[in-house]
Amino acid sequence: MVTHSNGTRLANSVGIVKRQYAHFDTPLALRSGQSLPAFTLAYETYGTLNADHSNAILICHALSGDSHVAGYYSDNPEEAPGWWDDAVGPGKMFDTRKYFVVCSNVIGGCQGSTGPSSLAPDGKPYGLRFPVVTVHDMVQAQRHLMRYLGIAQWLAVAGGSMGGMQALEWAVVFPECLKTALFIASTPRSSPQNIAFNEIGRQAIYADPNWSNGDYYGKSIPAAGLSVARMIGHITYMSEHSLEVKFARRLQERPALGYDFNVDFAVESYLKYQGEKFVQRFDANSYLYITKALDYYDIAADYGSLEAALMKSQCAFLVVTFSSDWLYPSEQSLELVQTLEHLARDVEYQHVPAFFGHDSFLVEVERMTRLVGGYLERKSHEYGVLV
Amino acid sequence: MVTHSNGTRLANSVGIVKRQYAHFDTPLALRSGQSLPAFTLAYETYGTLNADHSNAILICHALSGDSHVAGYYSDNPEEAPGWWDDAVGPGKMFDTRKYFVVCSNVIGGCQGSTGPSSLAPDGKPYGLRFPVVTVHDMVQAQRHLMRYLGIAQWLAVAGGSMGGMQALEWAVVFPECLKTALFIASTPRSSPQNIAFNEIGRQAIYADPNWSNGDYYGKSIPAAGLSVARMIGHITYMSEHSLEVKFARRLQERPALGYDFNVDFAVESYLKYQGEKFVQRFDANSYLYITKALDYYDIAADYGSLEAALMKSQCAFLVVTFSSDWLYPSEQSLELVQTLEHLARDVEYQHVPAFFGHDSFLVEVERMTRLVGGYLERKSHEYGVLV
Repeated sequence: MVTHSNGTRLANSVGIVKRQYAHFDTPLALRSGQSLPAFTLAYETYGTLNADHSNAILICHALSGDSHVAGYYSDNPEEAPGWWDDAVGPGKMFDTRKYFVVCSNVIGGCQGSTGPSSLAPDGKPYGLRFPVVTVHDMVQAQRHLMRYLGIAQWLAVAGGSMGGMQALEWAVVFPECLKTALFIASTPRSSPQNIAFNEIGRQAIYADPNWSNGDYYGKSIPAAGLSVARMIGHITYMSEHSLEVKFARRLQERPALGYDFNVDFAVESYLKYQGEKFVQRFDANSYLYITKALDYYDIAADYGSLEAALMKSQCAFLVVTFSSDWLYPSEQSLELVQTLEHLARDVEYQHVPAFFGHDSFLVEVERMTRLVGGYLERKSHEYGVLV
Repeated sequence: MVTHSNGTRLANSVGIVKRQYAHFDTPLALRSGQSLPAFTLAYETYGTLNADHSNAILICHALSGDSHVAGYYSDNPEEAPGWWDDAVGPGKMFDTRKYFVVCSNVIGGCQGSTGPSSLAPDGKPYGLRFPVVTVHDMVQAQRHLMRYLGIAQWLAVAGGSMGGMQALEWAVVFPECLKTALFIASTPRSSPQNIAFNEIGRQAIYADPNWSNGDYYGKSIPAAGLSVARMIGHITYMSEHSLEVKFARRLQERPALGYDFNVDFAVESYLKYQGEKFVQRFDANSYLYITKALDYYDIAADYGSLEAALMKSQCAFLVVTFSSDWLYPSEQSLELVQTLEHLARDVEYQHVPAFFGHDSFLVEVERMTRLVGGYLERKSHEYGVLV
C-alpha cells in the first residue's frame, strides 16, 4: 500500500473510526440445535443515520474480513485502511455522505465478535467447544444488532464472497428487513471444489502439532498450519492471468535459479508473505469455523429448492459476477438470477469482464463504483430515500 | 478398482512384469552444475523389441508416477495394475503386440531410481544433500538407459503432464534420437499458478516437524505434511465438473450435517483417503525435488525463446490437450503447436472435449486409444516400422 501524509490519507476517507461492541445477553439459538448463552458483536458505522432511519446499509464481510471496512484506527501514517476502503467513504460506491453504513464481525470470528477464541462461561477460551455456526447463524446475530441500532429495514444488505451469502440469507430469512440485496462474487451453494479447498486448509491446520485439537490459547499458535491454509485460500482468489501479470516467472532477489529449496520465484515469496502476515491477525480456530460455515452453505438445501428459498424473498437483487472468478464461477450466480426472474422478482445482473479472479470485487473499484453505487443511487431515488 | 479373477484380470493385460534396474557408474552431470557420481534407473519393458530395434517407445511418467506403467507384479488378485494399464497392453493405445514399451522412474524419484531417499556414497541417505534435478536431467539419465537397452532411436517418446515435458525435452535435446514426440496434457512452461500450488505443497511438507529438514529416514516420516501436499495436488488434477459428478454435496456416511469437524462431505473423505494412500507409497523429499523440477521447467527460457528451442527438434509431434484441464490449459500447448507450425515441423494437434480435468489423459481411454494409438499406427506405417 502507498502511504501518504495524514492530510492526503484521510482526505478521501471516512477518517478515524472506532470499533464498537454490542453485547447481547439473550441466547442465540443456532442451526445446529445448540445455542450461545450470550454473545458480542464487534461493529463499526460510517456516515449518519437519517431521521427516518431509511438510509442504513449493512455490509457483510468475507472469510477473513472483520468489522473494519473503511478508515483508520489511528493517525499513524503507516496504518493500512479497512479492507474495503475503496468502497466506503465520501463519493465512493457506498457513499457515506448519503448512507449510514454498518459492518459487524461475524459470529465465530476473531476480531471482537464471539468466537472460538472468546471466553466461555467457565472463564476459559471456547476452543473447539464453540458450537459450529452457519451463515444463517451469522445473520441471526446481525438481526440482533439491527434492533440494537434502532433500524427497522436496511436500504441494502451487501457483500462479496461469504458476504454475498449473508446478503442472500437476509433476503430469504428476514424478507421484510431489507429493500435490496447486493450479491457480489458469491454463490448460493458451496461447490465440492470449494469444500475441497477449505478442507485441505483445515487439514493443514489439524496437521500442525501446535493446534493441539484447538486448545492452544496462551501457548504457541499453529502458525505453520494456518499459513499453509491461507496460501491455499489465497491462490483461489486470484486468476491464472493475474498471477501471470503480477509475477510471471520472475525470480525473487536472485539472478538465476538457485537449485535449492529457498525461494526462487516471486510468486513463492508473495504467497509466503501472505501466509505469514495472516497468522498475525487471524485465529486458526476461527478459520476452521468460518470455512465450515462456507461449506455448509446451500440455501436450496435449507428450503428444499432454490425456488422455494427465493419465494420467501421480497427485496430487489443486484447480482454481480466476474469473468475470471473461478472460485465462484458466474454459472452459479446465473442460476440464482434465473430463478429470481422466474419468480418475477426485481433482479439486475451484471457480469463484469475482469482479470483479477475472485478478488476482482475488491480490485475493480471504478467499475464497481459505477455499477453498485449507481444501482444504490437509482434504488434510493425510487424508494424516496434520496430526493 | 474392480478386481477380477486372475484369468480375466490378466486377459487384456501385459501380465506379470518385473521391475528391472540399470546401474550407471559414470557421473551424471546436472543442469545445476553439480553431478551425481553414479546412479540407478528402475525401469520396466513390455512387448518385444523387433529385429532392427525400430519399434521402441519410451513412456515418461508424471509427478507421482513410476516405472510400473502396466501389468502386475504378482498374481495377488487384490493388486492394482500399473498407473496407465489402460494405455499399455495388447490392442491398447500403446499396443504391446506391435511396440516395445519402456518406462523408467525419474531421477530424483523414490521407486527404485536414485533420489533423495537413496544412499549417498557415505552410506547414508542423501536427504536434502541430493542435488536439485531438472526435467533436462531426467532425460539425460534416460539417454543412458536408451544406450544400455541398445536402442538408437525411439519410435516415440510419450508422456502426459510432466511426462509431456520430458517428451518435449527429448525432442529438443536429442533430436536425432526420436521419430515422434507425444506431448499430452502438458505445458512447455510451468505457470506462476502451477508454481504456487507446488510451493504450497512444499510448505505443507516443511511445516511438518517430522520432516526435520529432510533428515527423517529411519524415523517417523512427515506423513501429515505430505498428505496435505498430495491433497492440494490432487484437486488441481480434477475439474469442478468432475467433482460435481463424482461427489456433488453428498454426505459421507452421515444422514445429515454433523455440526462438528469430522468428515461431512464425500469429497472430504475422498481427499483424505488420497492423502493417506499417497504417503504409503511416496517419499516426501522426492515430492519436493520433483515439484521443483516442474517449477523450473521452461524450455523457452533454456534456449532464449520457444522458437529457438524448437528449431533444434527434428521429430514429428502429436500434441493433445483436454478442454477441462485447468492445470495446463490448452492455450499453453497451442503456443507450442503454433511455433512448430511456424517452423514447418510435422505437428498434429488434438483438443479433446473432456470433463475430467487434467486427469482426462488417464481417464478418456477410448478417445485416447483412437487418437494416440491411431497416430502411432499411421506414423509406424509411414516410417516402415509396421508393414
